[in-house]
Amino acid sequence: MGDDPRVVTSSGFRSDGASALEWVADYLEGLDQVAVSPSVAPGDIAARLPAHAPEEPEPFDTILADLDRIVVPGLTHWQAPGFFAYFPASSSPPSVLGELVSAGLAVNGMLWSTSPACTELEMVVLEWLVELLGLPDQFRFANGGGGVIEDSASSATLCALVAARERALRGATLDRLTLYGTSEAHSSLPKGAKIAGFAHDQLRRVPVLDDFSMDPSALSRMVADDRAAGFVPCFVLATSGTTSSMAFDPLEQVGAICREEGMWLHVDAAMAGSAAICPELRAVHQGVELADSYAFNPHKWLLTNFDCTCFYVRDRNALTDALSVTPEYLRNAATASGSVVDYRDWQVPLGRRFRALKLWFVLRTYGAEGLRRHLRHHLSLTEKLRERLEADGRFSFCAPPALDLLCFAHVTGNAATERLLRDVNDTRRVLLSHTVLAGRYTIRCAVGGAWTEERHVDELWELLDRLAPPAATAVAQVAPVG
Amino acid sequence: MGDDPRVVTSSGFRSDGASALEWVADYLEGLDQVAVSPSVAPGDIAARLPAHAPEEPEPFDTILADLDRIVVPGLTHWQAPGFFAYFPASSSPPSVLGELVSAGLAVNGMLWSTSPACTELEMVVLEWLVELLGLPDQFRFANGGGGVIEDSASSATLCALVAARERALRGATLDRLTLYGTSEAHSSLPKGAKIAGFAHDQLRRVPVLDDFSMDPSALSRMVADDRAAGFVPCFVLATSGTTSSMAFDPLEQVGAICREEGMWLHVDAAMAGSAAICPELRAVHQGVELADSYAFNPHKWLLTNFDCTCFYVRDRNALTDALSVTPEYLRNAATASGSVVDYRDWQVPLGRRFRALKLWFVLRTYGAEGLRRHLRHHLSLTEKLRERLEADGRFSFCAPPALDLLCFAHVTGNAATERLLRDVNDTRRVLLSHTVLAGRYTIRCAVGGAWTEERHVDELWELLDRLAPPAATAVAQVAPVG
Repeated sequence: MGDDPRVVTSSGFRSDGASALEWVADYLEGLDQVAVSPSVAPGDIAARLPAHAPEEPEPFDTILADLDRIVVPGLTHWQAPGFFAYFPASSSPPSVLGELVSAGLAVNGMLWSTSPACTELEMVVLEWLVELLGLPDQFRFANGGGGVIEDSASSATLCALVAARERALRGATLDRLTLYGTSEAHSSLPKGAKIAGFAHDQLRRVPVLDDFSMDPSALSRMVADDRAAGFVPCFVLATSGTTSSMAFDPLEQVGAICREEGMWLHVDAAMAGSAAICPELRAVHQGVELADSYAFNPHKWLLTNFDCTCFYVRDRNALTDALSVTPEYLRNAATASGSVVDYRDWQVPLGRRFRALKLWFVLRTYGAEGLRRHLRHHLSLTEKLRERLEADGRFSFCAPPALDLLCFAHVTGNAATERLLRDVNDTRRVLLSHTVLAGRYTIRCAVGGAWTEERHVDELWELLDRLAPPAATAVAQVAPVG
Repeated sequence: MGDDPRVVTSSGFRSDGASALEWVADYLEGLDQVAVSPSVAPGDIAARLPAHAPEEPEPFDTILADLDRIVVPGLTHWQAPGFFAYFPASSSPPSVLGELVSAGLAVNGMLWSTSPACTELEMVVLEWLVELLGLPDQFRFANGGGGVIEDSASSATLCALVAARERALRGATLDRLTLYGTSEAHSSLPKGAKIAGFAHDQLRRVPVLDDFSMDPSALSRMVADDRAAGFVPCFVLATSGTTSSMAFDPLEQVGAICREEGMWLHVDAAMAGSAAICPELRAVHQGVELADSYAFNPHKWLLTNFDCTCFYVRDRNALTDALSVTPEYLRNAATASGSVVDYRDWQVPLGRRFRALKLWFVLRTYGAEGLRRHLRHHLSLTEKLRERLEADGRFSFCAPPALDLLCFAHVTGNAATERLLRDVNDTRRVLLSHTVLAGRYTIRCAVGGAWTEERHVDELWELLDRLAPPAATAVAQVAPVG
């Protein structure tokens, strides 16, 4: 390079890029053989990395080699077809390439004026999804609503909560406001409430029914009691498909209470929302027309890389009033005219990546029909596994099976269930996770990986079948819930 | 595909990937010729996109063609070498490839146990940066501190604010707490304060000195007055390199006040922090050892794609106490042992991408020496432009030139400056932005693009020289500040 002061050049990009692309292609094609979870202790990976950054440039191939040698052995492979833990975090080839193009463009869509197409493509793709999911027209821009891509459903909950709080603060002080959600609501509810300045006891936990969905009459009573005690109920989080067990809060009844009481209803359909792309599954959203805001994650079940949460509001001014702060250096004619959407006022951060690209790539590459076929494929795999678990006699369901999630336990109780989970996961061919439902240690199996085929679910069943102890004499001790 | 239920296959990935990679390579190589900002009106891009998502799959090449035809003409090209607006948002080839690999892996590092290497590589790279930037050892994990990658400095400010608030709430109610920052502090301070539940008037604006840095004696007086009035001062945001004019708040004096008063000091060095990789520029951090938390953005001046903010805290327990909420389905042995870092408790969202990869790729590809050379190159370009502006007679500086930022105006006043900015930007060969400093409409020129070379700064100067009106009779009306 000699006296050339330039450090960044494009000269190696095509060849390094080809290497990186080949690396990713090999990785994706090898997912079937990989150990789903790593065998490492805390600190193992860090110990294999140098303690100091290099002073001099290193060749790209060395970096890729270290990726193989040091990093990959320490990963839990969320894209492996045997990954049935937590929730599907489905990526896909067009989504990966959408991220590549987005990174290559490296524009910042904080304002419409800072890269107009970044904002407008996002608006259009979010309108497409209103139609694809059969969401109510209140979420369309033309009707005063609108959608935005957030990094996560947690951030969507926080933004909804802050908008609800600001609206309620017109008539009350912060310490008088109360929030409602069930114990099954996502952890982002208590976290968001804490970030937004609410004390722990301002969040009321509404009791659940036997299927772990919100008891609407309990909500009604709690709101009435709070009003009588001088509180101002302001926000309800209802979940369409809870994280633990895929329970559906009754949106119509909860929504009616919210309307009557002037409370903001946020519907968190992070996992289940994608199902609505199939017309026969639209029940996941029944009553959502009563919501003030709504979120679902294409980065869960719609083949789009994390981060991609679609967040919709009925009244976009309520959101932007709560989050807008415009300093001089960001003032511009387009914003001042009121004719554009500035997404910085719809989220916590100022800057934003061009996340709509990957969603656009996915929707176009597969088409709505492809995505429906993808989801139905998972549902049929889930159904087959459900039948096997049900017919076997050693397992019982801890919650009603719903969509792609099965929550089950060994009939002899928690110790056997916990041991079974450990033994199955120790094979490293598959990964399941757990929860606790009504005191029962529960195995969670979520079937939604991009690469999961029938043979992988068959293999999971073979492992469960081989490693589960007999029902023995203990069958009568536990009554199946589901 | 017939009866094959699979929708996602890897069959097209290598060829589509090659097309996408070629597209990005062509884009980067063509940046020199591109119109930096687009000529579009609100709605133009949306109108060119279909109103409905496709039902059937579309070929990848069609999507790339639409990218060229519809999206690119509506972009502001932040990577164009003539982009001098806002702040440098420098990407680079290894960073783009880091994003590609991260997207391909698509792991979720919400907990150590959900992909251990994702957490440990991030910890190691953040330790490297403590050394590279000469940051104090209090920010190292071994000393009870630690670093994390957030999406933005805005989120870092919010997290610091929430941690400070939780610490202060042990001895006071929320409505008694007060926060401090200058009018020049980033907009994320009022925004974060609002999200965190503070009323508008709990944020005190500390006056600035002539160079737009915080007046520490004013801070002292305001804190004393607030204490006397029964308030509990709890948080100060000091900026090392303000957004408007690259002013540096005096950290040593501000820090001493914070120590004495038990206030949390957060240092926002979003833009300027990267400079500390050059030993001769370490003054940007003078006094940072008094900070409770600190953030800088490799996604500004360190060739790493947005989003990448490095956020450090002195006491990581103060942060995780404020942000930790662990539901059953995320409990695991590693977390329970206390021997691992779970980054979910360091940020607003639950999920997280593998963002350390791109930073690792950049640090290794260029080496610390390469990055220093890159920054010094920008500083020499800035200095050359500064000399030209100073020697010309038609311009005056509205703030002391610092690092890669020049804030200047036409000597005849606001109207001429505003017109000059518009005329220069209308050429679409370059893009500058503006601010207002002490009532003066000010052109901001930030020289830090990855692809910006001497000839691009020369071209900018030629445009300014050609389009600026004469100093004429008005020279005496305006006294240069700088």
